[in-house]
Amino acid sequence: MSALRIALLGYGTVGNGVYKTIQTHQEKLKRILGNDVKIVAILVKNIEKHLAPDSDVLLTDDFKEIITLDKLDVVIDAIVGKEPSFSYLQQAINKGCHVITANKEMFAHHGAELKQLAKEQGVTLGFEATVAGGIPIIQNLRQLLNVNNIQKVQGILNGTSNFILTKMREDGCSFETALKVAQENGYAEADPTNDIEGYDAFYKAMILSELAFGEKPDWEESIRIGIKPITPEQIKLFTSFGYRFKHIASIEKTAAGIIFSVKPVLVNETHPFYQIEGVQNAVSIDGDIVGNISLQGPGAGMFPTASAIIEDLVYINKYSFSPTFLDEQNGLGLKLSSTYWAIGGDMVSENLPPHIKIIDRLHPNVLLVEASEEDIYSIQSPDIYCYQVLGKVLIEEAALVD
Amino acid sequence: MSALRIALLGYGTVGNGVYKTIQTHQEKLKRILGNDVKIVAILVKNIEKHLAPDSDVLLTDDFKEIITLDKLDVVIDAIVGKEPSFSYLQQAINKGCHVITANKEMFAHHGAELKQLAKEQGVTLGFEATVAGGIPIIQNLRQLLNVNNIQKVQGILNGTSNFILTKMREDGCSFETALKVAQENGYAEADPTNDIEGYDAFYKAMILSELAFGEKPDWEESIRIGIKPITPEQIKLFTSFGYRFKHIASIEKTAAGIIFSVKPVLVNETHPFYQIEGVQNAVSIDGDIVGNISLQGPGAGMFPTASAIIEDLVYINKYSFSPTFLDEQNGLGLKLSSTYWAIGGDMVSENLPPHIKIIDRLHPNVLLVEASEEDIYSIQSPDIYCYQVLGKVLIEEAALVD
Repeated sequence: MSALRIALLGYGTVGNGVYKTIQTHQEKLKRILGNDVKIVAILVKNIEKHLAPDSDVLLTDDFKEIITLDKLDVVIDAIVGKEPSFSYLQQAINKGCHVITANKEMFAHHGAELKQLAKEQGVTLGFEATVAGGIPIIQNLRQLLNVNNIQKVQGILNGTSNFILTKMREDGCSFETALKVAQENGYAEADPTNDIEGYDAFYKAMILSELAFGEKPDWEESIRIGIKPITPEQIKLFTSFGYRFKHIASIEKTAAGIIFSVKPVLVNETHPFYQIEGVQNAVSIDGDIVGNISLQGPGAGMFPTASAIIEDLVYINKYSFSPTFLDEQNGLGLKLSSTYWAIGGDMVSENLPPHIKIIDRLHPNVLLVEASEEDIYSIQSPDIYCYQVLGKVLIEEAALVD
Repeated sequence: MSALRIALLGYGTVGNGVYKTIQTHQEKLKRILGNDVKIVAILVKNIEKHLAPDSDVLLTDDFKEIITLDKLDVVIDAIVGKEPSFSYLQQAINKGCHVITANKEMFAHHGAELKQLAKEQGVTLGFEATVAGGIPIIQNLRQLLNVNNIQKVQGILNGTSNFILTKMREDGCSFETALKVAQENGYAEADPTNDIEGYDAFYKAMILSELAFGEKPDWEESIRIGIKPITPEQIKLFTSFGYRFKHIASIEKTAAGIIFSVKPVLVNETHPFYQIEGVQNAVSIDGDIVGNISLQGPGAGMFPTASAIIEDLVYINKYSFSPTFLDEQNGLGLKLSSTYWAIGGDMVSENLPPHIKIIDRLHPNVLLVEASEEDIYSIQSPDIYCYQVLGKVLIEEAALVD
């Protein structure tokens, strides 16, 4: 049989990792796929900046040269941004190519359309690398969905934010200093907006929502709060109570619809995310049959992401990427979880609206309360901050609630 | 198409969970498998003790009645012990049935033979439920192996032991008291030997070894230490240093062969297993491309185990259970990890053999040392205890080593 011919869109960190991994894993891939695997073309933005890694690889800045290749089996998308990625993958699918993407922003916006198109054309669409780098979360969710209805998915999906929060706590430094260290270590871009404002985690959570629940919440109404509001003083204060800040994406199916948020949250040591530190990612899944499963691992990086892309490659022609079937029993037995919040600031008093129940006073300026997400945001003001609290919360004497 | 006809061997907790889950998931399974799924027969040991759950289900204590059924597609093994499980599954495979097993003791001993037989007969062999209950560790390892060479697998694979260790630490109680609580909660058998002596974890680790490395270490030479030697005093002492006891199975591929152990270990809060508490299980995998991935979740229980079994069912006819192909590059770049140990007892002095390097004195009677597993056991005596230490170990001033 002739070789499996692949075009690689993008030759930055991820693209490079894919190229290298395919080169070093020729024998293994051949045994699994029954075929030689060959990268025949690479699309780059600026052709002056790159050299073709091999003389028989077409290096080009013109997608037309790639899409008009005589024989092309797979297109791997390792570029960023909605366009031109979406148009390129549409063209590739229409040509009958299998496609694999690592592009979360594009896939969060156009995943459903690409899935539909791939189904019509009978090709495979892999997107393991769009969420949580090397953690095989897509494959795990898919597998759990075979048996379980998924109730909730939570994750630390952005390594940059988690690195900054870890650094601020460990060194007692400011956000700006921690960001600078992240940039020096290659963990943050020169323009870090996507990471620190929560857009990156937001896109990934949208992809998980569509997979787990077959739908996405309203983009405009979904909560997205970045990590910039967190001060070194807050970190010091909550550390003294046994809490750490984590930037958590949460998607929950409830009778009232999907509750979706990306925001800084406080977790204590009973929570699986407490010791997810630095650039690590983690995802926690609640299924109705299996209970809670958590996964943690590298959320980014050249080789972890390449690993996810090549896992998708292995499933080409083997795995049905048909839409997930969800049971028509939504709302059955589902309820909103009780949520705890730490609210703080000089102006925090016990004169709160009645639907906000005070559980404890952690500190002269910090209250632990029970309230819905809606109610809590209704009292937010420049003088008051509110962070959700995860993990078992100790109430009065030895009364443990989840 | 006619229904997929299943025989269930064993109708205890796991068998019951499988029956109930299949009954309540008829619609979902039909959509995924394209077929109705029907349990047509149940094998029990003592027929007086059971009632057929439905009038058209054959309830029998005679396997012959099952294996001679006219049409039988799948046999699910939910019984314990090597025999008669192994013979029954051989017969089922030879008849052309797909088989799924939750029987770790049998599979640890006879997995390779069953895999070979299943391959010859062209049927599927599922064993997700043999290790770590609801955590999809088999599927994850298999998937990671498509791209990665696995270097190390570590796990808390026995919920009973972990529950007892957690209880002893939390309540300051004795092993006997904690075991009694475990038994009262249904987390330990009347005869707890398999769990507390580490046999259960040992079987599971053997299954993981064969999957990850294509081979098992020598059974006789492999270390298996249970949790009984751990005293409440030791727990209290190490808790004060920031360490918790965890019962960990470890399988590592090295240039010298597979290093395998099941034993109590000390972990600090930098280690992913530190907050795995109670009956939870966890598995950590080191792959050469992806880095470290950890999974945690329910290690046992009616529905988590049923979930794993039904995940296997979904892969019937879809998934190749062919043996894993390992690259022929063993020994390349592999080395023994440095290992740290806490050694303690009244007789602990600094007069240790020279190959045991003293790092720190944690306490008048406890030393932190660096040594190989072999060397450390050479100094063991009734007056000295040795526990391996995992997590980042702080050496002198701020020098962090992994």
